Amino acid sequence: MKKAIVLLSGGMDSTTVLYIAKAEGYEVYALSFNYGQRHKKELDCARRIADRAGVQEHIIVKTNMNAWGGSALTDDKIDVPDRDESSLDIPITYVPARNMIFLSYAASYAEAVGAQDIFIGVSEVDYSGYVDCRQEFIDAMENAINMGTVCAVEKGKRIKIQAPLVHMKKADEIKLGVSLGVDYGLTWTCYRGEEEACGTCDSCVLRLKAFEEARLRDEVRYKA
Amino acid sequence: MKKAIVLLSGGMDSTTVLYIAKAEGYEVYALSFNYGQRHKKELDCARRIADRAGVQEHIIVKTNMNAWGGSALTDDKIDVPDRDESSLDIPITYVPARNMIFLSYAASYAEAVGAQDIFIGVSEVDYSGYVDCRQEFIDAMENAINMGTVCAVEKGKRIKIQAPLVHMKKADEIKLGVSLGVDYGLTWTCYRGEEEACGTCDSCVLRLKAFEEARLRDEVRYKA
Repeated sequence: MKKAIVLLSGGMDSTTVLYIAKAEGYEVYALSFNYGQRHKKELDCARRIADRAGVQEHIIVKTNMNAWGGSALTDDKIDVPDRDESSLDIPITYVPARNMIFLSYAASYAEAVGAQDIFIGVSEVDYSGYVDCRQEFIDAMENAINMGTVCAVEKGKRIKIQAPLVHMKKADEIKLGVSLGVDYGLTWTCYRGEEEACGTCDSCVLRLKAFEEARLRDEVRYKA
Repeated sequence: MKKAIVLLSGGMDSTTVLYIAKAEGYEVYALSFNYGQRHKKELDCARRIADRAGVQEHIIVKTNMNAWGGSALTDDKIDVPDRDESSLDIPITYVPARNMIFLSYAASYAEAVGAQDIFIGVSEVDYSGYVDCRQEFIDAMENAINMGTVCAVEKGKRIKIQAPLVHMKKADEIKLGVSLGVDYGLTWTCYRGEEEACGTCDSCVLRLKAFEEARLRDEVRYKA
């Protein structure tokens, strides 16, 4: 059975991608990160989702990506702002090089278990403008991985990064996910990571809009 | 003052590179990793070296790169072998994608502090055959970093990975380092990480050979 590493945050995108990988017949090795994010709640979701999906293995790497601060996602001193539709700036929730770090670990894990596919739930549509969510970056990372791993360089077993959502609208993603059996009620999206989702941060707003467009009900509980 | 991230393991290559960066006028932000390596002793060395060199900041990222095992460097169940000159295989001490993970963190740190240079002590000469020590891989990572960081994509502040030792013989490196003020007695190379260096692992053998060629005395203590 062909193996795949799936980067699983516990959010809706990575969960959809996990179900796509399963539908394509992969044996899934899920990989999550406890990196100092304020919405650690997503890790409990990741555990439940991995369990429900029946993955082969689920590893949570613990690291301190917040060592140098600078992001509202990892620095308690910076508040998560509400979504600002008019702003063209990169949101303060951006964590420098986060997907690069995640993909590097995924490459290491892939080489260790003999997987040749890495799945990641990035999208260039309905997104926050993070530069490390673009296909161009994914291509560059795939190239670096194939230059820097023994399996690719010496054994000709190239690693492919699959980003099936990169050009998909979030509403279409939800419809696809539901058809594959995803229970989005298990996923966690809110950046603020409180008991209930805030409904106003960047991440919540994009999610709510997508459910509305898909004409589906979001089972996650939001603050009144 | 221009800033540089220096990947500092506490070994001789990264220490030499730290002194090269200083000699080129950089303000140095040193970055080390506690990743489950058995030779943790190198981290004490890294601290002393960073202190002696007067770096601006020294961060040690803690992570569990040993989560999926498979390397003698991070898995206590696998012994570090003596160097085998006749073998063409990648040594069991290879940690999959290690330099990719290190460089990804360095890119994140660089973006956070506004550095445009990352120094790494990899070499294609007198080395263990690790594929992630080659210039080709470094070039591919530099490209990925410049596709995946806001500073490069949106602000035109590209990041450069400097690998000044990549084509240098280790004996020449030592002579250069000594001329720049490196105290190699502070560095740690042995993979076995015991009280004294073993003198027979891959890493020790390459080091001893280099000191011999450079006609210099190695101040590190070896087992009798």
